[in-house]
Parts: sequence; C-alpha cells; structure tokens
Amino acid sequence: MRSFIGRDILSLKDWERAEYFRLFEVCDELAPHARNRRNTDLLANKTLLTAFYQPSTRTRLSTEAAMHRLGGHVLGFSDAKMTRAGDFYQESIKDTVHMLEYYGDVIAMRHYQEGAPHEAAKWASVPIINCGDGWGEHPTQVLTDLYTIWKEKGTIDGLHFMCIGDGRMRTMHTIAHAMTQFDVEATFIFPPEMSFSEEFKKGLVERNLRFRDMGSSAEAIADADVIYMEPVVQADYTQSRVEASEDKGLTPPEYRVTRDLLRDKAKPDSIILHSLPRMDELPADVDYTRHARYWEEAFNGVVMRMGLLSLVLGAME
Amino acid sequence: MRSFIGRDILSLKDWERAEYFRLFEVCDELAPHARNRRNTDLLANKTLLTAFYQPSTRTRLSTEAAMHRLGGHVLGFSDAKMTRAGDFYQESIKDTVHMLEYYGDVIAMRHYQEGAPHEAAKWASVPIINCGDGWGEHPTQVLTDLYTIWKEKGTIDGLHFMCIGDGRMRTMHTIAHAMTQFDVEATFIFPPEMSFSEEFKKGLVERNLRFRDMGSSAEAIADADVIYMEPVVQADYTQSRVEASEDKGLTPPEYRVTRDLLRDKAKPDSIILHSLPRMDELPADVDYTRHARYWEEAFNGVVMRMGLLSLVLGAME
Amino acid sequence: MRSFIGRDILSLKDWERAEYFRLFEVCDELAPHARNRRNTDLLANKTLLTAFYQPSTRTRLSTEAAMHRLGGHVLGFSDAKMTRAGDFYQESIKDTVHMLEYYGDVIAMRHYQEGAPHEAAKWASVPIINCGDGWGEHPTQVLTDLYTIWKEKGTIDGLHFMCIGDGRMRTMHTIAHAMTQFDVEATFIFPPEMSFSEEFKKGLVERNLRFRDMGSSAEAIADADVIYMEPVVQADYTQSRVEASEDKGLTPPEYRVTRDLLRDKAKPDSIILHSLPRMDELPADVDYTRHARYWEEAFNGVVMRMGLLSLVLGAME
Repeated sequence: MRSFIGRDILSLKDWERAEYFRLFEVCDELAPHARNRRNTDLLANKTLLTAFYQPSTRTRLSTEAAMHRLGGHVLGFSDAKMTRAGDFYQESIKDTVHMLEYYGDVIAMRHYQEGAPHEAAKWASVPIINCGDGWGEHPTQVLTDLYTIWKEKGTIDGLHFMCIGDGRMRTMHTIAHAMTQFDVEATFIFPPEMSFSEEFKKGLVERNLRFRDMGSSAEAIADADVIYMEPVVQADYTQSRVEASEDKGLTPPEYRVTRDLLRDKAKPDSIILHSLPRMDELPADVDYTRHARYWEEAFNGVVMRMGLLSLVLGAME
Repeated sequence: MRSFIGRDILSLKDWERAEYFRLFEVCDELAPHARNRRNTDLLANKTLLTAFYQPSTRTRLSTEAAMHRLGGHVLGFSDAKMTRAGDFYQESIKDTVHMLEYYGDVIAMRHYQEGAPHEAAKWASVPIINCGDGWGEHPTQVLTDLYTIWKEKGTIDGLHFMCIGDGRMRTMHTIAHAMTQFDVEATFIFPPEMSFSEEFKKGLVERNLRFRDMGSSAEAIADADVIYMEPVVQADYTQSRVEASEDKGLTPPEYRVTRDLLRDKAKPDSIILHSLPRMDELPADVDYTRHARYWEEAFNGVVMRMGLLSLVLGAME
Repeated sequence: MRSFIGRDILSLKDWERAEYFRLFEVCDELAPHARNRRNTDLLANKTLLTAFYQPSTRTRLSTEAAMHRLGGHVLGFSDAKMTRAGDFYQESIKDTVHMLEYYGDVIAMRHYQEGAPHEAAKWASVPIINCGDGWGEHPTQVLTDLYTIWKEKGTIDGLHFMCIGDGRMRTMHTIAHAMTQFDVEATFIFPPEMSFSEEFKKGLVERNLRFRDMGSSAEAIADADVIYMEPVVQADYTQSRVEASEDKGLTPPEYRVTRDLLRDKAKPDSIILHSLPRMDELPADVDYTRHARYWEEAFNGVVMRMGLLSLVLGAME
C-alpha cells in the first residue's frame, strides 16, 4: 500500500481497496476522542489551512472540528469574496499556492472550478485535500459515507447501492469511482438530463462496476441495501440549492424517498445516507424510521477527517 | 442549586439568586488570568462553536476570547450569509443542530429569530448559550452587567436601577427578569412606542419587581444607583443602529445622559453601564466622569464568559 | 536599543539600524520551526487579535500563521462589513479599542484610513501592529522584504535598490523610511502622477537618503542589486488591483520587468522582490530566472512575523 504521509487527497479514482480499510481502522482508533468529546494533542504542532473559494459550512467546519479534536491549529478563509476584493479569482493557482503553503501544513481546498485542487497540488509542498471542486469530485464526503456504511452494515462488499441524485455532480462521480474497489452493485436514479456522461459510464464499465440506470426510487428500492441520496433540484454550483429550487419547484416523486415507500417496499435493514442539507426529497418524518443514518454520517464526517489528517500528516501510520 | 454542567443558557427568567452569586465567585477565581493576560489550559481539550446567524463582533469576540483565555479551541461562522448561499436560512434548526453538535462541545448562538436557541437546545447534545435571539433575550450581556455592578458597588441588593432604552429589545427583557431575583427598584425610561408589552409588565408584577415608568433621564436620575443605558434610535434588528439613526435623527434629550446632567442631578456614586456601541445618548465626555464603568463592563464581558464556559463544561463546579 | 516588549509597530520612520538587526537575529532563531513545520509553544499563553477593516488575505493569514507556529491563539475579523452591519465604521477608534484590547494580547490592524492604527495605539493597553493603513505605511511587509534581502545578499549596506511602483502607496513610503538607516542608494521608477510628494522627498533628503527618479526599468536596471516591485495599475485602496486594472489597461513597459530585460541588462546577482499578487508588471516566466526571490519572501513573511510577535510579547528579548 502507498504511504499516506504527505499524500494529496484529490480523487478516489486511484484509491485501492486496502487503503479504504486502512483509513477505516485509523478512524476507529480515533473515534473515541470524538465520542468522549476530549481533544487530543496528536497534531498540536501542526496547522490546517482551509482555503474555501466557495462557502460550505458543513465541509469546512467538519474539517476544522477534526483538526481541533486532534489538538491542531486552524486558519483560513471561507469565501473568496472575503479575500482582497476578489484578487484570488484572477491570480494563478500557482501564485496563490506558493503563498498558502507557508501558512499551514495541510491545505483543505474547496473551489468552484473543477481541477483547481489538482493544479494546487502540482505546486504545493504540503498535502492538498480536495473538499469539493466544481463538478469534479468530493472525496472526503464519500469516504465519510463509506466509513458510515462499513460501521453500520459491517461490510461494504455484497451490498446493493441505490444512488438518487444528479449524475453530473461531484459526489456521484466520487462514489462511483469508489464502488469499483468493492464487490457491490449500483442502481443510479438520475433525472434524464442529469445522467452520467457516456464517457464517464464507459470508464465505469472498463473498471467492471456492475450498474444499471432506473427511473424511480419506487422501482429500485426493494433491492437496495444502501439508499444514497442527494437533491436533484440543484442544477448549478453557482446557485445554492434553495435558490435553484425556487426556480424549479419541488422534487418529482421519482427522486424522493418517503416513509410510505420505505414501509411498503424497502428491505428492513436498508440504510439511508444523505449529506444534507435536504430539500423535500427526504421528508423529516423519515428521521423516525429504522433506516435513517444521516446523523451518524454527520458524526462520522468529523471522525473520518480526523483519520485522514492524522494519516497525511504522519501522526498515524 | 441546579448543577451548571451541561446546562443551556437561554434565558435568565429561570435563574435563581444563588446561581448568580455562584457564577460571580467563579468569575472572581478566573479573572486574574484575564487581568494578567495569560491563557490557562483549563479547557484545552474542549471546542467552542460560535454559530452567529447575524454579525455581532463584540459578543462573538468576547465569547471566543474567553475560550482562548481558557486554552480551548474555537471555530464557527460569523454571518449566515457566509454559509452556503443562505442554505441555513431555510434548513430546519433541528437538521442544522444535528450537524453543529459534532463540531463543538458547546454552541454559542446568535440568531435573528426569537426562540431559535431554545429550539436548538431541544435537539442538541451539547449546551447552547444564547448570545442574543431577535427580540428575545441576551443573557450573557446581562450577566456581564450584573457582575460589573456587583464588583463596582459590592452588592446588587438595595440598588435603584434607571434603565434607558428600548423596552421591546432583548437586553431590557433580560435585565428585568434578572432584577426579580434581587431586592432592587427599577425605573424604566422608554419612548412611548418602545415600552414593555402589557403582558411582559404583568409578568414582572407577578414576580414582585418594584418598578415604575418615567419620561426622562432628568426626572429620574437623582434616585439612580445604576444608570443602565441602551440606544433608543435603533428600531429594527434587521437594520444596524447606524442605518436606523440616519433615518431617525439623533436621540431626544429625554433619553440621553450628559455630563451636565450627571453633575447637576446624579448621585455621586452612581455608575453608568452601556454595552456599546453608543450613539449620541452617551456623549464621549462622560468617559471622564466618576460614573463611567462601561470599559470595566467590556473587560468583565470576557471574564463572565470564562466563568460561564467553565461551569457548563464542568471545568469548575 | 529600545526594548521591543509592548512596543507598537506603526511605522518604520523611527526604527534604528540596530533594531532591524536584532529582529533579523530573532527571525533566524525562529525560522527552523517554520522550515521544519512544527509549531512551538513559545506563545501558547497569548492571544492575537486580527482587526482587519479591509480584507487582506496574505497579510492576515501570514500574521495568523506566525502566531499559530508559536503555539498561540488567534481570533478576529477579516472585513469590517462582517461586523454588525458596519457599526465599526462609525464608532470612534477609542471606543472600539477599549473593547478589542480585552480580546487579545496584541492587535494586528489593517485599516482603510491612514493613521487609524496610530489612533488605536493611543488608547490600547496592548501593542498594535500596523498591517497597512490606507495610504500610510506597511511596516510588516517591508520588514519581511529587508529580512529577505539580508538573507539572500548577506547584507543590506552597499546595495542599490530599484523601486518600481506607486509612490503614493504605503509600501513605498515604508521602504523609503527604512532605507535611511542603511548605506544604500535608491532609484525610484514611478509614473509621473504617482510620484512621492515634495514634502515626502524633502524628508528623505533631510535624512540623507541618496536617491534619484528615473523613467523606466530599462534605464535603471543595470545598477540594481534589489529590484523592488509593486503594481502601478492600482490607484485606489477602495478598489482591488484587478478592478482598477480593468479600467486602466495593462502596465506600461516602463514599469515592467521581463525575462528579456533581465537577460539583457540586469546584474547577474540582482534579486527581485514582489509582495504579490502581481499584475502583468512581472510575467510568470521570470519565476524561472536566477533573480526571483518572491517565494522566499512569502516564506519569510511568516518567519518575520514570528520574530515580531515574540519580541513585542516578550517571549524573546
């Protein structure tokens, strides 16, 4: 297995099976500090820089919370508009990174532009963690999701994933890449105009992922062990989900998972993941079913980032 | 006395006399760290999350400064507009809190909506500290004020409070609740359109607060031991005081306290508190009188929050 | 030599030669912590407050990174618009400082108004570090630059500085003040409408700085040991460089330093400093010449601020 020390976390396309399990083990070792609410001093002599060119409170705060739980220092910016009147929009990534790399020992980057963290990683002397790059990827979210599945189901192999959402968006790209490393089947339920590109699908076929497209959650849910949800009403990363939904109306029933549907058709031990915030695709009364695991997912988001930071900074091996 | 450990600090309506004095004692124990400017490590293994849905630099920074002085970690957001394009405005408090509770061990919340911290406290596994909720309450400000009075006058019982400001606003609600636990008298000087509601007054009568309304500071100041001031020119929490004052002109003389008035009519040992920033209700030359205590109040704002954080997180008992 | 403990860093006009060298020695002592990427605990019991009334990501983050590297705590605000709806714009500096001084043990202030940090220093009980005040000064930038020159050339005395940029701007004021303490010569290349004021020039003459004005980099570069660059396309601190350049077009060739010019005319061992971000006055292919030292300058920006914080807070003497 490649060492994690100093590694950039840009995409899960190149992650191998064993690497996921190594990360999960480290997460299990560190989870008690989060559960017992006591910061350690494992990374007390390290600094995390959060470079968020777009606001994303969940991803930023869960990464920062992980660093604080490990006793580390944190600084950064949470919106490029907050930087000197937008200079960063125009400055080359290379120039920016040759400044940022001296401010922290690892850089967590969210960028509105696909590939920006990869470009940053070319020039930086410190690891770059991709916290979402435009339509590209979102590895820390999907690692959180897989760790949650592994904790809740005891395995990833052998499971059937029903993925509802927008196939053009980064989280769906990343979960699809990750699934190629496990013995799983996938059903994708995307609105027709939001499907994977033909080229992306070809890549999945080449890597032997067993998958199919279906038209609605009702049709597919009986097979699902993992119900993996994202909103479908957001079309554009320059708009928020809320703004987008005002234009487009509510989620069509094919892309929703309701309490009735779960009672009527779902496997009793199937679990629902959702990175939140949610629109109406996942009504609040689903919280009171046996299926909901999104609060565990939120907790695991901190634990997984504790694992990742410890590994890339060499505090765990 | 109820334990402070894990307690939400939402309102002072339910605080008992003895609880104030217990908090003041803890403040006295911790104050030397602030005065000597040396951070302790009392809360080094804890993290404070500041969830400010409205900017409030004083309240946010004094809370964060307190946590830093205690050696703790801090993260958060200082304006909901900085979160993902306003998603938080629409997401339910429950959903938000089930994310935020994993990022910190105590949540300091400012919200534009009355009751939001109470709703958060229903769902959170960590203590919520209300840092101002719309027209509701502002307990940490008033605890600071009472601690300052106790330090400066040696007692709270037996004092006469003259409160000038806007009776619809949260600080006045909270000081009124607090006064019911002490042997004090109150004179309220509010513009007619800014008086307490009849229902609120009825509550004060039921709890045996001795109070009266008067029309001007000049009329009432001779009786006052504590001159408790807020601006009257801000009418709307969605506007800043400055914006509001541009529309409405300067403070009418009835609601001002000037150097001349103090010299002519005030008790020599009366003290003035003001949470600042001030408009023209309190001219700058009052700073050079024996009455000004608002800088002490600013210092005590950090000390009091050190006490409160230590108590709710169980570092002091 | 005056003690550094508790000293305000407002201007370099009053700095003496020996003080620069004392600071450089301290920087050399602390640099290994930055180079080895390990935070110390030298300032673990101190808190830095960053009071940035204008966004400036580089200056703010390099100051905060320095404090984190020294194990200290950091809080603050990065844009006055983020404070309560602009209250700070109207509140007096005195009132603001009598609040801020309790939140940190040293205040790093960027302000859009010249002289604001000086006014703050009049009232504050803690040291104020001027991180740029309108058209005034920018001492931490110039200290970084001088330290970089000293490290790269082994001396400051005996060097010829070619300074290209806008003579009305703070960095040029500060470098000019600093040069009076060394045995150097200066050539200033400013667009005619951006020259030093006559009064400012008179001050330099009185302090025996040998300097001349010239019209273009091509004319002057053969003499230069240090090529000290700032953009000329930004005219107004209320606009960003990028906005300004959109109005005004690209940098005229007289104020640019290109690879061709360096090859044809520059001393082989001359070095280029630029605080970045750059416009087209310094093309990216200059990065691959022997002259570029602006990345070293970026690294030294953290080291120099580590030195300064340690000195004014009394951790180094």
